[in-house]
Amino acid sequence: MDIAIFIGSDSDYEVIKDALEILKRFKVTFSLEVSSAHRSPKRTLKLIEDAETQGAKVMIAMAGKAAHLAGFVASHTVLPVIGVPVETSGFSGLDALLSTVQMPKGVPVATMGIGKSGAVNAALLAIEILSLKQPSLAEKMKEYRNEMASQVERKSKKIQENL
Amino acid sequence: MDIAIFIGSDSDYEVIKDALEILKRFKVTFSLEVSSAHRSPKRTLKLIEDAETQGAKVMIAMAGKAAHLAGFVASHTVLPVIGVPVETSGFSGLDALLSTVQMPKGVPVATMGIGKSGAVNAALLAIEILSLKQPSLAEKMKEYRNEMASQVERKSKKIQENL
Amino acid sequence: MDIAIFIGSDSDYEVIKDALEILKRFKVTFSLEVSSAHRSPKRTLKLIEDAETQGAKVMIAMAGKAAHLAGFVASHTVLPVIGVPVETSGFSGLDALLSTVQMPKGVPVATMGIGKSGAVNAALLAIEILSLKQPSLAEKMKEYRNEMASQVERKSKKIQENL
Amino acid sequence: MDIAIFIGSDSDYEVIKDALEILKRFKVTFSLEVSSAHRSPKRTLKLIEDAETQGAKVMIAMAGKAAHLAGFVASHTVLPVIGVPVETSGFSGLDALLSTVQMPKGVPVATMGIGKSGAVNAALLAIEILSLKQPSLAEKMKEYRNEMASQVERKSKKIQENL
Amino acid sequence: MDIAIFIGSDSDYEVIKDALEILKRFKVTFSLEVSSAHRSPKRTLKLIEDAETQGAKVMIAMAGKAAHLAGFVASHTVLPVIGVPVETSGFSGLDALLSTVQMPKGVPVATMGIGKSGAVNAALLAIEILSLKQPSLAEKMKEYRNEMASQVERKSKKIQENL
Amino acid sequence: MDIAIFIGSDSDYEVIKDALEILKRFKVTFSLEVSSAHRSPKRTLKLIEDAETQGAKVMIAMAGKAAHLAGFVASHTVLPVIGVPVETSGFSGLDALLSTVQMPKGVPVATMGIGKSGAVNAALLAIEILSLKQPSLAEKMKEYRNEMASQVERKSKKIQENL
Amino acid sequence: MDIAIFIGSDSDYEVIKDALEILKRFKVTFSLEVSSAHRSPKRTLKLIEDAETQGAKVMIAMAGKAAHLAGFVASHTVLPVIGVPVETSGFSGLDALLSTVQMPKGVPVATMGIGKSGAVNAALLAIEILSLKQPSLAEKMKEYRNEMASQVERKSKKIQENL
Amino acid sequence: MDIAIFIGSDSDYEVIKDALEILKRFKVTFSLEVSSAHRSPKRTLKLIEDAETQGAKVMIAMAGKAAHLAGFVASHTVLPVIGVPVETSGFSGLDALLSTVQMPKGVPVATMGIGKSGAVNAALLAIEILSLKQPSLAEKMKEYRNEMASQVERKSKKIQENL
Repeated sequence: MDIAIFIGSDSDYEVIKDALEILKRFKVTFSLEVSSAHRSPKRTLKLIEDAETQGAKVMIAMAGKAAHLAGFVASHTVLPVIGVPVETSGFSGLDALLSTVQMPKGVPVATMGIGKSGAVNAALLAIEILSLKQPSLAEKMKEYRNEMASQVERKSKKIQENL
Repeated sequence: MDIAIFIGSDSDYEVIKDALEILKRFKVTFSLEVSSAHRSPKRTLKLIEDAETQGAKVMIAMAGKAAHLAGFVASHTVLPVIGVPVETSGFSGLDALLSTVQMPKGVPVATMGIGKSGAVNAALLAIEILSLKQPSLAEKMKEYRNEMASQVERKSKKIQENL
Repeated sequence: MDIAIFIGSDSDYEVIKDALEILKRFKVTFSLEVSSAHRSPKRTLKLIEDAETQGAKVMIAMAGKAAHLAGFVASHTVLPVIGVPVETSGFSGLDALLSTVQMPKGVPVATMGIGKSGAVNAALLAIEILSLKQPSLAEKMKEYRNEMASQVERKSKKIQENL
Repeated sequence: MDIAIFIGSDSDYEVIKDALEILKRFKVTFSLEVSSAHRSPKRTLKLIEDAETQGAKVMIAMAGKAAHLAGFVASHTVLPVIGVPVETSGFSGLDALLSTVQMPKGVPVATMGIGKSGAVNAALLAIEILSLKQPSLAEKMKEYRNEMASQVERKSKKIQENL
Repeated sequence: MDIAIFIGSDSDYEVIKDALEILKRFKVTFSLEVSSAHRSPKRTLKLIEDAETQGAKVMIAMAGKAAHLAGFVASHTVLPVIGVPVETSGFSGLDALLSTVQMPKGVPVATMGIGKSGAVNAALLAIEILSLKQPSLAEKMKEYRNEMASQVERKSKKIQENL
Repeated sequence: MDIAIFIGSDSDYEVIKDALEILKRFKVTFSLEVSSAHRSPKRTLKLIEDAETQGAKVMIAMAGKAAHLAGFVASHTVLPVIGVPVETSGFSGLDALLSTVQMPKGVPVATMGIGKSGAVNAALLAIEILSLKQPSLAEKMKEYRNEMASQVERKSKKIQENL
Repeated sequence: MDIAIFIGSDSDYEVIKDALEILKRFKVTFSLEVSSAHRSPKRTLKLIEDAETQGAKVMIAMAGKAAHLAGFVASHTVLPVIGVPVETSGFSGLDALLSTVQMPKGVPVATMGIGKSGAVNAALLAIEILSLKQPSLAEKMKEYRNEMASQVERKSKKIQENL
Repeated sequence: MDIAIFIGSDSDYEVIKDALEILKRFKVTFSLEVSSAHRSPKRTLKLIEDAETQGAKVMIAMAGKAAHLAGFVASHTVLPVIGVPVETSGFSGLDALLSTVQMPKGVPVATMGIGKSGAVNAALLAIEILSLKQPSLAEKMKEYRNEMASQVERKSKKIQENL
């Protein structure tokens, strides 16, 4: 298994779905667990240890509000941990963003933007990190980027036709 | 021991000092430990368990930035947990406030205002809670309130003299 | 009566409903009054005094906007007061949160997160406080926590089945 | 007495000083009391009633943090109440501003900008209100405005000389 | 005419409607004009002068975004000016609030809360100001306040019946 | 005269000083007046008309707090108007930024960043606009940009020497 | 071609549509391209150079979130660049506004308000800038302003009829 | 060379200094360049390509205000890019944080907290990423974490001695 993913609540599944498609497309293996830093801290700790044993190389954690999940994971592993803040309250995810990104000196969390785009970017960053050991992933990523650029160009043409 | 206090960094000691004076004045016993949810999670967990064994009835946790300490404590005990956000970064403590107060459903943290006033209020709230078992503390608290009201009145007179 | 609850407007009832279910489940008795710090200050003051007479041990106050209700209650009692900010304006409840949590030194309000989750947590914190006198409540709370952790685990399994 | 002024803490005196000079200049009479909505609510209530008895026509209240003072005054009188938020915490007075201005429907507080400028403007607004009964005050206010405009012009000339 | 009301856009009419009902109920006369500080500054200036000529005693201005209307009115009259910020953009009215309340020293705007409640409060404050010359309005306002308090009490009973 | 500059207060002079040096360096002529949208609206209006008569092609306005100056200028001219928000209150200039940038549809203000950098950028943008008629200014601007890039490179070398 | 417009995503087209109508009405020629500073930086750079070759005199760039597009354009041209922040995330466009307006000293972006109004204002500002070379555009702009003022007046009459 | 570091301004050097010490301690090689996305975009692009040629495996970019540097780097490489927002304006770094973290779908930036702690964490994250290829770094990181935990414990003891 390459990547261990933790989401703080089952409602976060909708937010991470597109990211899982990215991982499948790049043929990267992953586990996904719903587990909460606050409601099930002991199980979360065990899952982190299990993921390490199973060879996880990167961890992704997604949570909302006082989003401690990514920080909790990061404080129990020295693997790179990517945090995705989710908008679950009225603060547009600012609470989750600050709770994820403002980690104290010594325990980094690689924080992404809020919500679905952030989740997709978490998957892409995880793949970029895995590329260090699997250079073929870097090649695939370059293709993905080219495709993305071509897609922007196609959209531009389509809009110009309708001007 | 009545109250177990955790501060996330030794620099928070200056912020909690006045609160300790309050506890001494009300003759309430307490322990104080520097321990971090992120830099020393295992020791923090052990200290929480120790405090329960030693008979703590309320816990107070103070931290800054992505302030997970109070939430971490609250997720490992069913004692009332009071959280004090500290201003340690440029966000005026908004990061610490949201990280402390926006707890998920199921694990409450009794959040105070930011900084020194919040710390003193944490001590006062802890005493109000302890009053449930020690009614004499409620009487002392009423005196404290009266004294505070008198002090306001004295200050008012002093300013009027200088008008 | 164990807990006196005040809500600033009848529209807050929808927000506190789940919290009342928690109190019933833990067999904790409570009163509930709609009363405003601004629109009916004298009645609010009388209700606070009545609640004390009736033996309330904790008070919960919920309000939105310039949410003074919890602070008003706290300034007239030395019982522990829990404040729940409600989102009623465009500020996502930030106005209510700051108006509730930033109390001056001397008069604490145990502030919860915004809205329904905050209300449920107010109920749970009140029960944790009552546990000081009724240890059986602490046992029930531990069961509640275990159940919550199991529920997270069940949700995790359900999502994994659909991966 | 024309205007009753309440400040929540003696430290607010420095902030209101310039405003008192304005009132003296316009020969408007006033009282000034330090009194807190939270630390001395009963005395504050009594002072509001006293001010009404003494013929106050406008009330000004200044406070910081969870600034309830102006709202407290407004909920106990139907005289026009002017609120001045003070910056006393790290939130640059945003907490005090929202706590003062976001009053519920039914109980208005005429909110000024934060700090010293807001305090001076509270004095000027109070005078504009008193002008309804004392038209000579309106004339003096027009002079004040003209003087202010001239002062801006003088400053402009001075800067141009140094270009 | 007692009160001159300016709204920056016809879309603000929906927001001020309830406030007009208040004015009618208190039998206070008013004019209402749509006029913009930015799109029709000269007409706005003329309308301010006309309102003064027609005997207006208070002015109310309501606008959104970079809400300059109340400040524009205040800079051209020494009558009391009440400002109501409207939420018209994604900032929940914070842009309009700060643009209205943070006036420079010398030119006050009595700022209300955002939106419909703020508009109703503008009407009530205007009536409180007019009470200085028409004491019967103060009596009516006391009745209004009592009615409001009774309404809160009725709502409280209704909810208690459904507990 | 190419550019008419308005600052809302003489204290803004320190903030605009570096921008004036830029204008001198590019040999662009300008006028500078202290004038306030609120404290001297009539004079400001006259100065705008005078500047148009004197052939101004761009206007720059700088103000703090509820910064209406740029909007006021923009509502009285169809020349391009550049607004510079100044930090004068505790809101770090957010009040001035929103008051300047959130103009209603129909009356644009070209808003710069807050403070000294924003002021320098206002001068540079004004020059870019003037370049439409004076192509030599565009050439000078390209040189300025090259110089800026070289300066960055020099600074990079200097730091590398000290590594 | 007078104006080169860049939008960061095809979803921004809906936001810029009204602005294009303005440009057509003023008979100003323009190009429109979807191109991203992050997803297609090389194509964006080429499009900027192409636009310069084709004689563009002003550039407009619109983007959301970490909105770098306007800054990217501005860093590659000395033509005036107008930036329009778009609300695409939960931050109400504050992320896009700050990413667009807070440019470093040396590279200005003329920032408009958020969303559709900002886009229309970008078109109007571009026309005001073009007026320097085509004075007839200034005359048309004055007519546009007069029409806008008349429209406000008509709306005022319509509302007064319904009072 | 393992890590290519870019800072947007030489004034950022003070902020990144402690991070460089971390890299030296872990014996990780790095390059450091001052280069701006806005003031020297072409040189920045060249430096990114050079760093890739020289075998960089991770890139770190640090900038303030409308902090585009990390996004600029990320849009030109498929190596993992770590962004550090710097507080250089009055917004406490919120502008830099949002400009760095809110990247569009497709181009991730691993964002750290603001300022010095964020910079140190960037170095630590880079090392965690490099550990994928150099397992000895993971061992050293575990030691670093243990040392950090011991340091917290020592500080706790020191404070207890002074209680």
